Amino acid sequence: MNIHAKRIKDLQYMLKQHGLDGLLMGRTLETGFFTGFHLDDCIMLVTRSGAWVFMPKMFVDQFRSKIDFATAVAAEPNAAAWAADKVKELKLKRAAFEPDSETYSRGTAWLKAGILEKGGLTGALRAVKEGEEVKAMRKACRIAAKAFGLVKPHIKTGCTEMSVYRRLEDVMQSMGAKGPSFNMIVGFGPDSAMPHHVTTERRLRNNQAVLLDYGCVYEHYCSDITRTYFHGKAPEEFKRIYAVVAASQKAGVAAVKDGVRTRAVDSVCRDLIADAGYGQYFMHGTGHGVGLEIHEFPRLNTVVEATLRAGMAVTVEPGIYLHGKFGVRIEDTVLVTRAGCEILTR
Amino acid sequence: MNIHAKRIKDLQYMLKQHGLDGLLMGRTLETGFFTGFHLDDCIMLVTRSGAWVFMPKMFVDQFRSKIDFATAVAAEPNAAAWAADKVKELKLKRAAFEPDSETYSRGTAWLKAGILEKGGLTGALRAVKEGEEVKAMRKACRIAAKAFGLVKPHIKTGCTEMSVYRRLEDVMQSMGAKGPSFNMIVGFGPDSAMPHHVTTERRLRNNQAVLLDYGCVYEHYCSDITRTYFHGKAPEEFKRIYAVVAASQKAGVAAVKDGVRTRAVDSVCRDLIADAGYGQYFMHGTGHGVGLEIHEFPRLNTVVEATLRAGMAVTVEPGIYLHGKFGVRIEDTVLVTRAGCEILTR
Repeated sequence: MNIHAKRIKDLQYMLKQHGLDGLLMGRTLETGFFTGFHLDDCIMLVTRSGAWVFMPKMFVDQFRSKIDFATAVAAEPNAAAWAADKVKELKLKRAAFEPDSETYSRGTAWLKAGILEKGGLTGALRAVKEGEEVKAMRKACRIAAKAFGLVKPHIKTGCTEMSVYRRLEDVMQSMGAKGPSFNMIVGFGPDSAMPHHVTTERRLRNNQAVLLDYGCVYEHYCSDITRTYFHGKAPEEFKRIYAVVAASQKAGVAAVKDGVRTRAVDSVCRDLIADAGYGQYFMHGTGHGVGLEIHEFPRLNTVVEATLRAGMAVTVEPGIYLHGKFGVRIEDTVLVTRAGCEILTR
Repeated sequence: MNIHAKRIKDLQYMLKQHGLDGLLMGRTLETGFFTGFHLDDCIMLVTRSGAWVFMPKMFVDQFRSKIDFATAVAAEPNAAAWAADKVKELKLKRAAFEPDSETYSRGTAWLKAGILEKGGLTGALRAVKEGEEVKAMRKACRIAAKAFGLVKPHIKTGCTEMSVYRRLEDVMQSMGAKGPSFNMIVGFGPDSAMPHHVTTERRLRNNQAVLLDYGCVYEHYCSDITRTYFHGKAPEEFKRIYAVVAASQKAGVAAVKDGVRTRAVDSVCRDLIADAGYGQYFMHGTGHGVGLEIHEFPRLNTVVEATLRAGMAVTVEPGIYLHGKFGVRIEDTVLVTRAGCEILTR
């Protein structure tokens, strides 16, 4: 069975489990996930026995020429209203939409049409990768990991953060990547101490930290990796902090396993850093799911809770940031398995 | 005055005009527009006399070091709830959010907190470009226009659509672009007849149409351009259709002017194509606003209506598509002026 048709079947099984008889989806992301056809301005409806995509007229021919497991409907000017009409026509009583995925406008219109709110369906489905998805994730991650070795020799005193950004892009694209998977971070010296630094024209000086937080998209799937090192002779403080972060990250990766709670992995990383006396300098979550989106379900932090399942791809990325001086973050994307995990960014 | 501080003032003026005393914004796009700081997971609140950004703790230092006209507030874990609390603390009775910009979840939570729905404020503000924005748009468009001349000589029999995509990217990046402004379309032969074709590994053969719909991002601003030509000896039908589309596009551009209705520009393009007997083969809108987003307010089509204002950047892009054969689309991004418009993609 076609992978997309199988995903629709999986969603139909979930609908049954949740006592729903349909799900309406308005984002390109979901339509792409369920059809392989990443088109804007479409609405998808999956019921327990069928699937429709309501779309601008101009997409219909292309869609029909490629997909036979979902019905293309020319739906102008308001595809969301067409989809709601179909729900009525099919007399679906428990059709739903996902409140975090739809805009307030669309959700409100659907609610008025008698459609229910129900979150977390497609996110849970997308979190566990299978078949071609695992292959795409592996490739995206390997390209990113390989890029570090190829780019590092060119990071020399005097070069700018932006020039390194471009080289990362070029090197990853030459290995087949579509492009970067997010606004990548290249931080020199004090810029490495800002977890969400925006890459600038700052030039690298002797004896500065270098932090690269980057990744690429390969066949729609994202990778995410961070590498930090010292350009020049590392001071003791950098070495000490690097060792703490490395130990924390290693322990976090070792804790990842099917059935483990996300908060437990966060604790492993966080406790190790706190015990070393740097707790207040690790001010973000430990990781997040990665896939079609760079940040997706589940999150590994102190706030929310979920259980890791074999097939999920998540990052483990603790860090310590000394404002005005330097920061160290080490990040890998890993694939959860029954026995532990496979480090993909290797 | 700083450009971002001025934009906040403009929004405060709009709030007054609409009888509102605050606006809550949850997208990176708006926070970026009003602060110059493009950070995820922040909520911005602008009142008639102040501005706050509620953000993850880890962004606060960086934000404060750069921005003095908006107050950074560490707001974890739920920045949207912190923002709603501030509305309460300030006793704002008519604070609003934009229903097309927020997720259903966030909008619903704010509605429960007594915040009102009011659309179209920031879209209208962003539509009219000024100062640095015009410079960035000009540069983004010039890079795109120049790329055509540089890439075309390399488009030879046997090369793939994807190789042309990459060359467009490289050439635009070498001129300073950050990257492509959307999933660009390179279509050979029958692929040119699909208005939303996804670039493939198809190889160019002798005597095929070539359609390039592309653009880049320069300092956060997008450009959008389409060029079509025939590789080899063009058949009469291609020449005829090209002439019709070129005349339609030229007439559309000539119709653009401060004060003109968007639907009027669409009609000029559409009527000319219909009169030539190809009405049914032009199945999309004539154009759209361009700026921080590749598609933004206003739209130039048969469905909605708005008035063009000096400073707006819009595309004019009629096309004719013969399924299975070839398509022709010609697109420029233009800047609306009092006297007419300035073609930016030149």
